[in-house]
Amino acid sequence: MARIVMKFGGTSVGDIDRIRSVARRVKAEWDDGNEVAVVVSAMSGETNRLVELCKVANPMHDLREYDTVVSTGEQVTVGLLAIILQSMGVEARSWLAWQLPFKTSNSHGNANIDNIDGSQIIARFETQDRQVAVIPGFQGISPLDRVTTLGRGGSDTSAVAIAVALKADRCDIYTDVDGVYTTDPRLVPRAQKIDRVSHEEMLEMASLGAKVLQTRSVALAMRYQMPLQVLSSFENKPGTFIVPEEKVMETADVTGIPFSKAEARITLNGVPDRPGTSALIFSALGDAGINVDMIVQSQTNENQATDMTFTVTDTDMDRAVSLMESRRVEIGYQELVADDKVAKVSIVGVGMRTNSGVAQKMFRTLSEKGINIKVITTSEIKVSVLVAEEYLELAVRALHSEFGLDV
Amino acid sequence: MARIVMKFGGTSVGDIDRIRSVARRVKAEWDDGNEVAVVVSAMSGETNRLVELCKVANPMHDLREYDTVVSTGEQVTVGLLAIILQSMGVEARSWLAWQLPFKTSNSHGNANIDNIDGSQIIARFETQDRQVAVIPGFQGISPLDRVTTLGRGGSDTSAVAIAVALKADRCDIYTDVDGVYTTDPRLVPRAQKIDRVSHEEMLEMASLGAKVLQTRSVALAMRYQMPLQVLSSFENKPGTFIVPEEKVMETADVTGIPFSKAEARITLNGVPDRPGTSALIFSALGDAGINVDMIVQSQTNENQATDMTFTVTDTDMDRAVSLMESRRVEIGYQELVADDKVAKVSIVGVGMRTNSGVAQKMFRTLSEKGINIKVITTSEIKVSVLVAEEYLELAVRALHSEFGLDV
Repeated sequence: MARIVMKFGGTSVGDIDRIRSVARRVKAEWDDGNEVAVVVSAMSGETNRLVELCKVANPMHDLREYDTVVSTGEQVTVGLLAIILQSMGVEARSWLAWQLPFKTSNSHGNANIDNIDGSQIIARFETQDRQVAVIPGFQGISPLDRVTTLGRGGSDTSAVAIAVALKADRCDIYTDVDGVYTTDPRLVPRAQKIDRVSHEEMLEMASLGAKVLQTRSVALAMRYQMPLQVLSSFENKPGTFIVPEEKVMETADVTGIPFSKAEARITLNGVPDRPGTSALIFSALGDAGINVDMIVQSQTNENQATDMTFTVTDTDMDRAVSLMESRRVEIGYQELVADDKVAKVSIVGVGMRTNSGVAQKMFRTLSEKGINIKVITTSEIKVSVLVAEEYLELAVRALHSEFGLDV
Repeated sequence: MARIVMKFGGTSVGDIDRIRSVARRVKAEWDDGNEVAVVVSAMSGETNRLVELCKVANPMHDLREYDTVVSTGEQVTVGLLAIILQSMGVEARSWLAWQLPFKTSNSHGNANIDNIDGSQIIARFETQDRQVAVIPGFQGISPLDRVTTLGRGGSDTSAVAIAVALKADRCDIYTDVDGVYTTDPRLVPRAQKIDRVSHEEMLEMASLGAKVLQTRSVALAMRYQMPLQVLSSFENKPGTFIVPEEKVMETADVTGIPFSKAEARITLNGVPDRPGTSALIFSALGDAGINVDMIVQSQTNENQATDMTFTVTDTDMDRAVSLMESRRVEIGYQELVADDKVAKVSIVGVGMRTNSGVAQKMFRTLSEKGINIKVITTSEIKVSVLVAEEYLELAVRALHSEFGLDV
């Protein structure tokens, strides 16, 4: 017997028939004697419809009212799923955020989770025939007792947080893929499903472009050492387990090769090398809400000038360029070059901690294929390189083979 | 300056443009310096859509989950209306039932109102620039902190109860008609709008077929002496005021002539006149949830038998007949006659209390038109008669003229 949180996204609950399929998955776990809480999203399309109503009402709407409107999507799903579970003979009830309560910060539209009281659910696990708890993802209540939402995609994070609050044995995230892959199988057909991966590796992979899980939910799972499973809503087979590092047995150097095309590179040539220049550049970007990812500064030349290169997401490029141009005199650079035809390729693996040759192997492999590396960043368990976008597929395929990940 | 509760139904908030019209009505009251709470229904069609989802999920659904799903309709409207009011420069916020709280009984799907805490709203009237409170009609929370609904059309009742809780000066019910009429203008073109009517008369008229207000909401307003106004959502002019009796100045004998075609008459001929027979008949009907309206028992004849006639709504007729037939031996009647081609015509007016000739005038008028009266019931301020449905229009028009109500 285990205590399990199961999370289903919008496409998994897109209509009554699909909610019925979800209910069958829940019933199977319950029939096996498990204690189950289910976290669900709004029926697909519903959140967009509600967001659109708010926009038409007023594009500059009050986020507290927006949250009140948009949170109804999940409220409908939890009621319907509870009804269907009951019709299958499963003891079940829905819980709204205020009923638990599920407390968050006051940041409407993008709230952080503060505290979840799981005591009523746990009590019913123990006394009411393991009553299944059906909980809306993505929402909570603020310290002022208003409805909040965690921001789009917050349902994964809700599920992990609820698993922590319930002291669950694991949190199963049901998706439209059957697990986490070594890289995107659409780009590399020889990509393979990973059976087990550590939280830390998964966190890097999610941040570096693997879209299967939200970075935020993995970070939360890592902090609380909560085991996750990513598995298919539609097929009945095990997925990928994301577990504390000491439980990952395999010792391959590289676990996965995430990549991202949504990158843009900006280079400021001839920046005077004097104290405060970097602060000037990056606090301007930070104040504008533009996240900077990679940063490289070249050697200072004989004119006491340097070249500063950084990357932002491609959707932020135009804003970042305008901002830099408006600060040109202040920063004192000679020339600005922007390029969104770049991509970031990363290798991720806890094995890198103990094997120092991994980065060199990556650079050599790319070099042998004639791929020029524009920027490099590293952490303890990952190396990322920026390359011209046209070389992306070649780079990923070559690394995937070289690090022994091909099926 | 007055404190006003304004209530708008589903067609008045059917889309964003209509919600904008509602907001303009609210703003006009607020701009006049009034303190305003608004009670709104779900956007038209929305409640039906949600009810249908529950039915498809399981026709025998748990009413607690049904209430959770169906209550989202109003939640969407309150958020949108608050957003639009704010966009017009009106200080406003939405309140959900649990936030007030708005407490009801545990009868899910058809709950009774227990207690509404209006203190937070009143505090904001006084401190936050008369912040307009936007409240979902039709819903509350149970003693067990589950979402409840008051049953269909419960929004009028919500509005009156909120007016009482806020100690409002009046409750304005916006509808698709511009007030209460002496009788249905579709049947009698010379019907006229009533300016003022007492709670008690309105209660009789609502119970007797005038559909403009829910009986339940009028009864609540009468108990707390809360003035109501029924007025048009679409035209900007005064409607009908429903006020405590001492504030009605006019002294006409008859205020209105409500009628109902949804009647059926059942007669049991040759019922043995012995103790307990009536109890047998009417407790059987009551147990089956069939409401009996008029009852007449004929004189006992030489065989110690009597004829028992009663009316039920036409939709209950078939069930009532089956029930009586199944109890035939027990009750001991000779013959059952059922007829749904009957209609009930009533005259209502507080003037009847002091003028004893009113009922006779009614009977004489009908007699002069050759209309046969099948059943009569009376109360202190109303007389109702059952007639053949084909005579309905003639009866109502004749009475409307005779009692001086024609325009």
